Formats: sequence, C-alpha cells, structure tokens
Amino acid sequence: MAEHDQNKESLQESLQQVIHLLSKPQLEETLVHQPDLSSQGLIASLVQEQNLHELRTKLDELHPADVAYILEALPIEHRLVVWELVKAERDGEILLEVSDAVRQTLIADMDSDELLAAAEQLDTDEIADLAPDLPRDVFQELLETLDSQNRERLQSAMSYPDDTVGALMDFDFVTIREDISLEVALRYLRRLGKLPDHSDKLFVVDRHDQLLGVLPLKRLVVNDPELTVAAVMADDPVIFHPEEDASDAAQAFGRYDLVTAPVVDTENKLMGRITVDAVMDFLRDESESEVLSLAGLREEEDIFSSVWKSMQNRWTWLAINLITAFIASRVIGLFEGSIEKIVALAALMPIVAGIGGNSGNQTTTMIVRGLALGQISTHNMKTLFMKEIGVSLLNGLVWGGVLGVAAWMLYHNLALGLVMTGAMTLNLLLAAVMGVGIPLAMTKLGRDPAVGSSVMITAVTDSGGFFIFLGLATLFLI
Amino acid sequence: MAEHDQNKESLQESLQQVIHLLSKPQLEETLVHQPDLSSQGLIASLVQEQNLHELRTKLDELHPADVAYILEALPIEHRLVVWELVKAERDGEILLEVSDAVRQTLIADMDSDELLAAAEQLDTDEIADLAPDLPRDVFQELLETLDSQNRERLQSAMSYPDDTVGALMDFDFVTIREDISLEVALRYLRRLGKLPDHSDKLFVVDRHDQLLGVLPLKRLVVNDPELTVAAVMADDPVIFHPEEDASDAAQAFGRYDLVTAPVVDTENKLMGRITVDAVMDFLRDESESEVLSLAGLREEEDIFSSVWKSMQNRWTWLAINLITAFIASRVIGLFEGSIEKIVALAALMPIVAGIGGNSGNQTTTMIVRGLALGQISTHNMKTLFMKEIGVSLLNGLVWGGVLGVAAWMLYHNLALGLVMTGAMTLNLLLAAVMGVGIPLAMTKLGRDPAVGSSVMITAVTDSGGFFIFLGLATLFLI
Repeated sequence: MAEHDQNKESLQESLQQVIHLLSKPQLEETLVHQPDLSSQGLIASLVQEQNLHELRTKLDELHPADVAYILEALPIEHRLVVWELVKAERDGEILLEVSDAVRQTLIADMDSDELLAAAEQLDTDEIADLAPDLPRDVFQELLETLDSQNRERLQSAMSYPDDTVGALMDFDFVTIREDISLEVALRYLRRLGKLPDHSDKLFVVDRHDQLLGVLPLKRLVVNDPELTVAAVMADDPVIFHPEEDASDAAQAFGRYDLVTAPVVDTENKLMGRITVDAVMDFLRDESESEVLSLAGLREEEDIFSSVWKSMQNRWTWLAINLITAFIASRVIGLFEGSIEKIVALAALMPIVAGIGGNSGNQTTTMIVRGLALGQISTHNMKTLFMKEIGVSLLNGLVWGGVLGVAAWMLYHNLALGLVMTGAMTLNLLLAAVMGVGIPLAMTKLGRDPAVGSSVMITAVTDSGGFFIFLGLATLFLI
Repeated sequence: MAEHDQNKESLQESLQQVIHLLSKPQLEETLVHQPDLSSQGLIASLVQEQNLHELRTKLDELHPADVAYILEALPIEHRLVVWELVKAERDGEILLEVSDAVRQTLIADMDSDELLAAAEQLDTDEIADLAPDLPRDVFQELLETLDSQNRERLQSAMSYPDDTVGALMDFDFVTIREDISLEVALRYLRRLGKLPDHSDKLFVVDRHDQLLGVLPLKRLVVNDPELTVAAVMADDPVIFHPEEDASDAAQAFGRYDLVTAPVVDTENKLMGRITVDAVMDFLRDESESEVLSLAGLREEEDIFSSVWKSMQNRWTWLAINLITAFIASRVIGLFEGSIEKIVALAALMPIVAGIGGNSGNQTTTMIVRGLALGQISTHNMKTLFMKEIGVSLLNGLVWGGVLGVAAWMLYHNLALGLVMTGAMTLNLLLAAVMGVGIPLAMTKLGRDPAVGSSVMITAVTDSGGFFIFLGLATLFLI
C-alpha cells in the first residue's frame, strides 16, 4: 500500500527538497536568460535543466494544497520560479488554496491568457472566490465564456457579502425525486458515475426544485432497496438561507455535526449547498483574523511582504496608539507641578496604568467571547457587571495593597503607599466598567467588538490611571 | 416539511423561553421545598407544576448541543434547575457538549449513580473525554462495567496527551474485506442496518486488521456492483498515527478536505478513526484558548464563575505583569535625578515605551503565526529579521520624527525632540529584534510561542523604552 501519510514532517521535507533544488547554482538565471553556448555554459545549463526537471516532477506529485503551502513558505523570487514550473492546468486549484497576500503576488506574475485558462478549470463558486483578485478585463472575458446558468450563479454568488452563507455556498449537488425506490436511485447514481466532493447526502426535491428532504448516503446503503426515497429520507434537515450570517452557520455545523447542508431561498427552493470544508476554511480565516486584529494587523500581509507593504499594514494601528499615548502624555503634563515636587510619582504611575490595562483586557476578552457565543443578553448583564466589579475590587485591594506596601517601604512614605493602593483599586474598577461596557456598546452600535475594544480599553485605563493616581497624589500629598 | 432551521435566532428564542419559564414566581422553590398544602399554596404549586412541565417539554425537543448552549448561558442557580429537568438518559451527551467550566458545575450537582448512568450511555472515546472530570470512585466503578475490549480502548484513549491524534480518535468504524464484490458489501451494510455518524467511507482491512485502503460510500454507490472492493477502493488514503500532533492532523483535514480518516499503529494495524467534527471541536478549542491566553486567561472560566474562581483564573497573569511593571518602575527610579531637572521626561516616556510594545506585539504575532503554519525555518530567518528591522527603522524615523516635532513644539526644546526621535527609533529596533527572537527562542526551547511571548515583549519594550529614553536624555540634556 502506497502510504499517503502527509503530516507536517513530510511536507517540511518536500519544502526542503524544493529549496535545495532552487538553491543549486544559478537556477534562476536559466529561466530568465538564454543558456549560453560555450561548452562550459552548456554543461552548467544541462545541470540546471536536470534540476528544473526534478523540481517539476516533485511539484507534479504534490497535492495542490501542498504546492500552495510551499509557495507561501518561499520568498518572492523563489516563489515565482516555482510558480512558473507548476503545470498550467493546476494553476486554478492552487490559486484557490494560497492566502490572499500570496495570491496577489502570483496573479501579478500571470498574463491575461494564463489567468483565463486557470479560471476556466474552476467551478462557478470557486471562480466567485477568485474573482475579486482578477483584473477587470480578465473577469469580463471570463464571464463571456460561461453559459447563462453559470453566469447567473456566479453573479449571485458574488452578490453576497463575504461573511454570509451565500458566499460559502457551492453548486455541486445531486438531486433526486421522492417517489422513486432506492434501487432506482442507486441505478441513477451508477449512471452518473461520480459524485461531487463531500457528498454525504442527496437532496430530495419536487419538480419545482422545492426541497422536500435529504437522503444521506448512509441511509441509502443500509436500507432495503425496495423502499422509496420518501420513506427513507430525513424530512427535517438543517437548512440555511443565503443571507444568513456565515458564523452562525459555522456554529450550526459544529453543533449538529454536519458535513453538507442545503441552502434554500425564502420559498424553500434549493439554491446550493454548504460543505464542511468551506466552513472550516471560514473558521480558520476568522480565528486568524481575530488574533491578527488583536495586534492591529490586517490579514493581507504575508511573512515575505516587502518592508513597504508591511508598513502600510501596520501603520494605522501604530498611529491610533500614538494618539492615545499622546493624550495620556498630556494628562501627565497636567500634573507636572506635582511630579516636580514628588519625583517618585513618575516612577510609580506606569504601574497603575499598566495593571489597569491588563485587567481591562481580561474582562473585555471574556465579554467578547460571551457575545460571540451568544451567551450574553440583557437578562444577565447586571450579573456580569456585578461579578466583574467584584473581581476588580478584590484584585485592587490585594495587588494595590501589595504595591502600596512596596511604595511605602521604597520611599518611606506611608501616605504615598495609601494613594498607590487607592489609585490601583479605582483604576481596576474603571477597567471593569469599561471592560464590560465598551464591547457591549460596540455591539449595540452594530460593530464587531473583537476589533478595537482592546485599544479603547488600554486608552481609557492609561489616561484614567495617570489621572487617578496623579490626581489623588495632588489632593493628598502636595 | 418540518423545517429544522436552527440558526442563532431560534436558539436565542429557545433561551428566552427557558428564562421566561424559569422566572415565573418561585419556580425554584418547588424544586427545593415541598409544596405547602394551604389552598393558596396549592394553586401556586399547580401553576408551578405547569411551568415545570412546559419547561421539560421544551428541553426534550432540543438537540443536546442546544441544551448545552442554554446551560452555558444561564447563571448557576437557574442552570441547575434546568439540569434537574433534563431526562437522565440525555445527561451523558449533554455533558460532552458543554464547556469544561460548566461541566464541572453540573457534575458537582450529580451523585455517583447519576454520573455512572450518564457515562454508561456513551461510547468509549466519549467516556475518555469525560473521564478527567469524573470523581475517582465513579471512574473506577465505570471501568468495571466495561468489557475487556472497551476497557482496553478507554485506557489507550486516555493514555494519549490532549493534543495528539490519539486523544481525538474514536472507535466507530465499519471494516470490510477487499475480495468481496460491492454487491456483497451492500448486502452486508443492509444487514448492519445503521452506520456510525460521519461514516463517509468504510475501512478495508485484511484478516490481521492491517489497513489496505478505504472505500468511500460515494464510490460504493456509483460503481458497478459486480466489481470487487479491491478494484474500487482508494489504496493511498491519508492516514494518521495516534502519537501525531493533533494540530498537524487538523491542518491535514483542512488541506485534503477530509471527513473521516483511519488511525493506524506503527505496523499499519487499524486502531480507530478521526472525524471532521472532532477536528472542528479541537480547532475551536485551540483558537479560543489562543485568544484567551493572549489576555492571560485560562479557559476554565465561564462567564458566570464566582468572583473567587475568576480571581484564581486571572491572578497569575496580573502578578507577572505586576512584576514586570515594578521592574520598569525601578528603571525609571534610576533616573529620578534627571526627571527632577526636566519634568517633561515623565510625560513623554510612556509614549516611547507604549509604541515599542505595540510594534513588538505586531512582529511577534506575525512570527507566531508563521511558526504555527510551518512557514518559518532556518533558511528564511535572516530574511525575516532583515525585513522586521527595516519596518521598525522606517516606523521609528516616521513616527519618532512626528513625536520629536511634537515634543520640540510643546516644550520649545529642539534637543528634547531629537532625543525623543532617537529613543523611539532605538526602542522600535529593540522591539523588532525581540519580536522575532523571543518566539523563535521559545520554539527552540520546545515551548508554545503563542503563550507568554506577548508579556515578555511588553516587559522588554517597557523597561527598555524607559531606559533608552531616560538614558539618552541624561547623556545629552542634563
């Protein structure tokens, strides 16, 4: 048995082989220049031919997803060499697998004919995924090559926003009628000769394409062939509508352990289906962009992006932080007189601000997660507020107490220690209130609380922490 | 057709209905106290009976995953009322669906017999998932109720660490021989009458349970029934070994669009299978704990945890941050003399430290992601370092320049502005070097770079930022 044991190690091996073949002398040049014809040059170019040939063979053996992985792991110049070597008829599949940033670098390297040829090998829903990255004229030409049903499907698939069921939908499904026997259904399938990827069920429709139920292949194979489809099918399948939220659909897939599910319009007419692999891709993208957005990164940066592209990706966040830091700095500026008198304040104030930020981020993370899972609504908001205030009060007294004692010891000033404890407690309370309030307010305003809550919390606890600590110090110590 | 259109809205509706029924007067008391027998009490208790009855009916209609969702969204006292009402034979399934923290609250409310009864309804691999939360004596009793094959399976499933393929594996698969015809295979399946969840393929084995290939149901139904299994099966399926990394397996599931895959031992003997729903659960847990760990939260906290439990969950991280903040504060303490002379330094220093932290976290996030995807190895480390240093140099000059001008204007001190620009640039360079270096070093040491890199980066850029800025100021301005 030829084992296809493709775990990470063997993928890493493939990558190492590719890198090895690429780094043999002057491989790149043969692609760009004519081999020179002196005898020495001839030998060198034969060696290079040999490498290229090996590399091409290696690439042909690999699954499109693995080629995509290798393309992503290579710096741009090597990436384009490999891309040239990939068989043209695999271009389309591979373009679908690579990340957005890498796809742009590959498409930029292809001319219109190559792009058109690549896109023509794809299904309508796959073209819809690729379309936003295609040059306008290529896309127009592509539209003309499609028949009217596929053109309509493409346009409808592209009309749904990225985060809806409609954008995840594909059109690869097999439908049958409910009044035939399983025996007839099996004969029909044998005539078809092939089922689309992930087909775990057939969709049962009437002559107007109204969905009546689904017939899982599992039921088809274990039931008496004399029975009718109607008797064996599931008549209450989980269904989706194209305008539904993709993340709700993804949760339903996890909750009900689905592999495929039908998508119907408001009149219950079958439009398409969702498969678990589309859902997994969606979930992966979601969780990736959540982690990235916590650090203020958009997803379009690949690790080999140019310095210039990387700066563009990062500057918004840095600029926002610069502004909030500047505001905090001006808050400190208000109290320069106090700091001049008690310079210890300057050393202690970042602690108050920093711990407030950390505590606020913990609260916000809990709330954002509860909101995403739909566990937070009006009925339990009060409970939540009370709990977070309790936690921060306790934390404030404990950690504020520890720091108060430390400040007292260090500066031999009991009053300074007390101000420290008081300021910590108040800033943690502020962090708790804002930590719950900011994500809730953002949700009320229809915005995604996962994006930006953390910056806002930090801004409030920084400026607030400096203000509270320096304000208390000015009141009680000066 | 009875639509089972379970999207988030209808789940929310179910939750609202449950809450409504729960909040009718004194419902909880009927569960705890005997109904009192005065005529007024009798009417009240009849009303309550009615509510309980409605609630029980509602719960019986819901999918176990939906009951789990409702339990998670209820504060502890309501949660336990609902838990009492759930039919005993569904307890096991529901315990599997709830989060770890909620599961603990439910198990704490059950006695040994209830737990035993719940566990007995589960498959071996499901018991393995539940086992760590069961009291020791219940687990021992449970072991005794199992036959020797299942006891062995349970012990083997529990012997694999949480993040390996072995921990995700289940034992629900159907095997067939390669020399029979598809017709015979179909007859065999009809005799079985039922296939396990997610069965998209049968596993083809010889008489020693050696895996020879897999027969997708898709191929079974579309091929000529006269053909043999051997002629139709796929003989190079993607396979896994129990000690492999679960996250590598999850990546392979996404890459090769798998629904189920066999798990074999080193001698290619079939041990179990992995299903896409186990993979999706694993991925969801992973991405959740990644986001939580970025804020220093462990996953065991549910939003209704007590104040005391929440504090335990959060205090480690706050304590670590307190220590790093204290160190940064002592760095400032070194320069109190300089701050006394130029008090503007106190107002400006948090900006230098803060932006350094943000920039460092962006770099670390990119690197951690690249490491997780296996895109970073020795051959491209230099490229990465150079790129990050380039980005931070540019950012330092641009944003440091802006701030330098701001400081100059604000304090009418050109030298102060130049020190500001210099300090920003140097601290961003430090952030870049540490942002790449810390996650790489953690990986070298065999630790997960996603946990803790962010705290370490912030610690370095805070203390480093204060030191660089105040140090330069002391050198050039005092």
